[in-house]
Amino acid sequence: MRLTAKFLGLEAGGKSVVVLNKEDAEELGVPTLGRVKVRSNGKEVTAIINTTTALIDVGVIGLYDEVRRSLDIKEGDVLDVEIAPSPTSVYFIRNKLRGRKLTYEEILEIIKDTVKGNLSEIEIAAFVTALHSFGLDLDEATSLSIAMVETGNTLKLGRHPILDKHSIGGVPGDKTTLLVVPIIAACGLTIPKSSSRAITSAAGTADRAEVLMPVSLNLEEMGEVVEKTNGCIIWGGSLYLAPADDIFVRIEHPLSIDPLLLPSIMSKKKAVGAELLVVDIPCGRGTKVKTIGEADLLAKDFIELGRRLDIKVQCAVTYGEQPIGYAVGPALEAREALSTLMGKAVVPDLVDKATDIAGILLNMSGRRNGKELAVEVLKSGRAERKLREVIEAQGGDPEVNPSDIRVGDRRFTARSDRDGYVLWIDNSSLVEVARLAGAPKDKGAGVLLHKKIGDRVKEGEPLFTVYAEKSVKLQRALDALEERMFLRTGDRMEMLIHEVKERPVTKKAFMLER
Amino acid sequence: MRLTAKFLGLEAGGKSVVVLNKEDAEELGVPTLGRVKVRSNGKEVTAIINTTTALIDVGVIGLYDEVRRSLDIKEGDVLDVEIAPSPTSVYFIRNKLRGRKLTYEEILEIIKDTVKGNLSEIEIAAFVTALHSFGLDLDEATSLSIAMVETGNTLKLGRHPILDKHSIGGVPGDKTTLLVVPIIAACGLTIPKSSSRAITSAAGTADRAEVLMPVSLNLEEMGEVVEKTNGCIIWGGSLYLAPADDIFVRIEHPLSIDPLLLPSIMSKKKAVGAELLVVDIPCGRGTKVKTIGEADLLAKDFIELGRRLDIKVQCAVTYGEQPIGYAVGPALEAREALSTLMGKAVVPDLVDKATDIAGILLNMSGRRNGKELAVEVLKSGRAERKLREVIEAQGGDPEVNPSDIRVGDRRFTARSDRDGYVLWIDNSSLVEVARLAGAPKDKGAGVLLHKKIGDRVKEGEPLFTVYAEKSVKLQRALDALEERMFLRTGDRMEMLIHEVKERPVTKKAFMLER
Repeated sequence: MRLTAKFLGLEAGGKSVVVLNKEDAEELGVPTLGRVKVRSNGKEVTAIINTTTALIDVGVIGLYDEVRRSLDIKEGDVLDVEIAPSPTSVYFIRNKLRGRKLTYEEILEIIKDTVKGNLSEIEIAAFVTALHSFGLDLDEATSLSIAMVETGNTLKLGRHPILDKHSIGGVPGDKTTLLVVPIIAACGLTIPKSSSRAITSAAGTADRAEVLMPVSLNLEEMGEVVEKTNGCIIWGGSLYLAPADDIFVRIEHPLSIDPLLLPSIMSKKKAVGAELLVVDIPCGRGTKVKTIGEADLLAKDFIELGRRLDIKVQCAVTYGEQPIGYAVGPALEAREALSTLMGKAVVPDLVDKATDIAGILLNMSGRRNGKELAVEVLKSGRAERKLREVIEAQGGDPEVNPSDIRVGDRRFTARSDRDGYVLWIDNSSLVEVARLAGAPKDKGAGVLLHKKIGDRVKEGEPLFTVYAEKSVKLQRALDALEERMFLRTGDRMEMLIHEVKERPVTKKAFMLER
Repeated sequence: MRLTAKFLGLEAGGKSVVVLNKEDAEELGVPTLGRVKVRSNGKEVTAIINTTTALIDVGVIGLYDEVRRSLDIKEGDVLDVEIAPSPTSVYFIRNKLRGRKLTYEEILEIIKDTVKGNLSEIEIAAFVTALHSFGLDLDEATSLSIAMVETGNTLKLGRHPILDKHSIGGVPGDKTTLLVVPIIAACGLTIPKSSSRAITSAAGTADRAEVLMPVSLNLEEMGEVVEKTNGCIIWGGSLYLAPADDIFVRIEHPLSIDPLLLPSIMSKKKAVGAELLVVDIPCGRGTKVKTIGEADLLAKDFIELGRRLDIKVQCAVTYGEQPIGYAVGPALEAREALSTLMGKAVVPDLVDKATDIAGILLNMSGRRNGKELAVEVLKSGRAERKLREVIEAQGGDPEVNPSDIRVGDRRFTARSDRDGYVLWIDNSSLVEVARLAGAPKDKGAGVLLHKKIGDRVKEGEPLFTVYAEKSVKLQRALDALEERMFLRTGDRMEMLIHEVKERPVTKKAFMLER
């Protein structure tokens, strides 16, 4: 069939999509979301069909931008359009939908087509949902990890060993990486850290680091920083490591499911060449992993998957029932991390966690007494100096001081209405308040705790301060706070947690951080 | 946030979708596929967000047609846009994704939001996939059936009992309904039959019937036809019965899954007020249900679901390993059905199946010897006269003759290359050939068998004829035939079926007919 090109002026998120009149689609014998081959001047694209009854006339084909660019044509050109079969990967997805285990070849096909934009959102959603429902075993997780590495960029450094750390996420205020990277690099070891931005949290490591230095470097620049300083903190999204994962995340997020946790993390580590890896598994109420038993099972899988990918993995199961340190939100956290490195702030849990993780890495790479070494490197100021080197190499200001970091000037401080103790902090409600205040988009927005769990508090004492850059967002955050306070003070013997008066809607907190 | 409206001139398939610049979406704090409330002049719509980096500027909101129509605004109007929470039904879908059983209230919410266009394709795909993976029990099937009836039109007739029949589909050439409806109606019983068009087959009952009469009537017209003649054969798509199902079908089809089989069928029956129902379950290789054991299990579920919906159900497990009668394709089938009713053609399997099903319905409604009665009504010509009444009432030509029915004039007849027997017919390959020849869109296209399984055939004798309306489509069908012949002749003792030389791609046949 020959159809006249009309440009829609819209992007389809990387997918090849065309719009046909329903009449033409029926004539071709292709259903909505079926596929056609579109040809012009020897170029050819396979595209997914959307149909319409009104806005594209019979005889016309509406082109999204991706198809327009691949074909290199003018509006009004006449194109050859014919029915195309579904890519083979669709049959493999259907196999998973029937509960079958997938082979490496099948998974590679699916991942390739995902990256090339050959699969519709429905097909990818079904794949992700089937992985979630039927589960994936370690063979499949291995295949997925390798296939995701194969279809993206890889960092090649002429150094060994390559160290790395990763947190599965879920705890607010976790700025551990900002301390671990300089500690390790200061010890002369190589740690090319790629990190992510917040998805459902108030700040990702890339968001925090960006307050101190540029993080959107490409792979070549990343390599140069590491050659110069032994370490780096770069936003992974600019590196095109395991790009299939970025597509899966867009589907997983609205569904609040995360079946690709293991391959997602491990593929990104493999892509930077990691050989020794510590995976931090925050544990407890208000995190992804509620119990230590669960955490140990997950750790076992990380270690075994690492073995199959030639990465030596150790896991750190850490306490996650409240934020790490006091600050939540990109600028507040960057300030807290920098102050801690400079010895200007006392943040015991942050220092303990960072030196624990750095210590494990140091032990894995053959140093003795890793934890003590890490503490010493931190206390001596060598870690601070290393961070400033990294900041400079990435293009930031190496002289930056905590007081230079701008935080939101619209503020509200909550005070205790009684004497007592901080009984609990609800991570997800705290994050919601920080996000409503503007984090992570407004870097200066967030929450600064003045008290943490177990702290004694007097009536009138400040509990925490909400920071925002815009009054309207501060108000939004305070409205949410009104409804659901994230920090509870009281006597240690109060037994009633809350009353349930009608059938509640189970809005479960979901953390999708990698 | 206040944004300027830009019309995209595109439909989103009934969903409310707007496009924002990524910058604005981040400022609002809403992710891709999150939701916003859009307000103007006191009107308000909740819409799903797509984001773009280039084609919608900061400060602009791109509106799909559905949103434009609901808001009733001009291009360039300034709209109030703010973040909106996900509808409650999304949380219920997530519960199903965690393997939880859903209550009626939860299912009703999901179905309502599906019909209103409040759910994204990803969310609906996840729901359908989760139903497929985790399964749904009879409580959930009941809830789905009722919810789908609640959210659509219902036919109210002042008559009792209301009879109905349904085939779960999967056998080509099944024109049984064209005989059953007039037999039942000729006995003075009421049978308001709604039927579907082909989805993956070569012809649906609505496609066949449309060769003889208009089928796109609305609910009121349907009622009038039934009042006049006791029966009808109407396309369900114009009736808005259980419209959620039409949306689910669009998702199920590309995924080749059909978890909603039971509620989908039963909701449409309930919506027309059916009280006595026969469900035909074609069984055997090349159908949906491969074994009699499976068929019996499915029958049990239909009967129990019927009990809960106040519909008395009986099932007929029928032989389905080859087409019913000789004709496959809308016009060829309509011609065969009409000839059979007129006693001009001898099609034993079609007559046997139609009188079996009509007989069960007659027995259920209290008549004696239903099968014999059905045969007599058919042989006496009363059924033919009744069909002509129905044709007239629906606006067709009651004098229509088999020779008036136009079939494709591009034809190819395949002949046997040896003496032997027809050993097997592959339903799905046959359907593929008929579809490539143009069916169901080209009504005159299809396949006419000259021999069926077990028939003796001599070298040079015709096996079947492919009909098409266009040469290019005939050629397409013949190319497919070249690759995979759907009818196999041979000696009864040939043992090798086929050789497998390399790992085959498992392209399973999938029939989605309701």
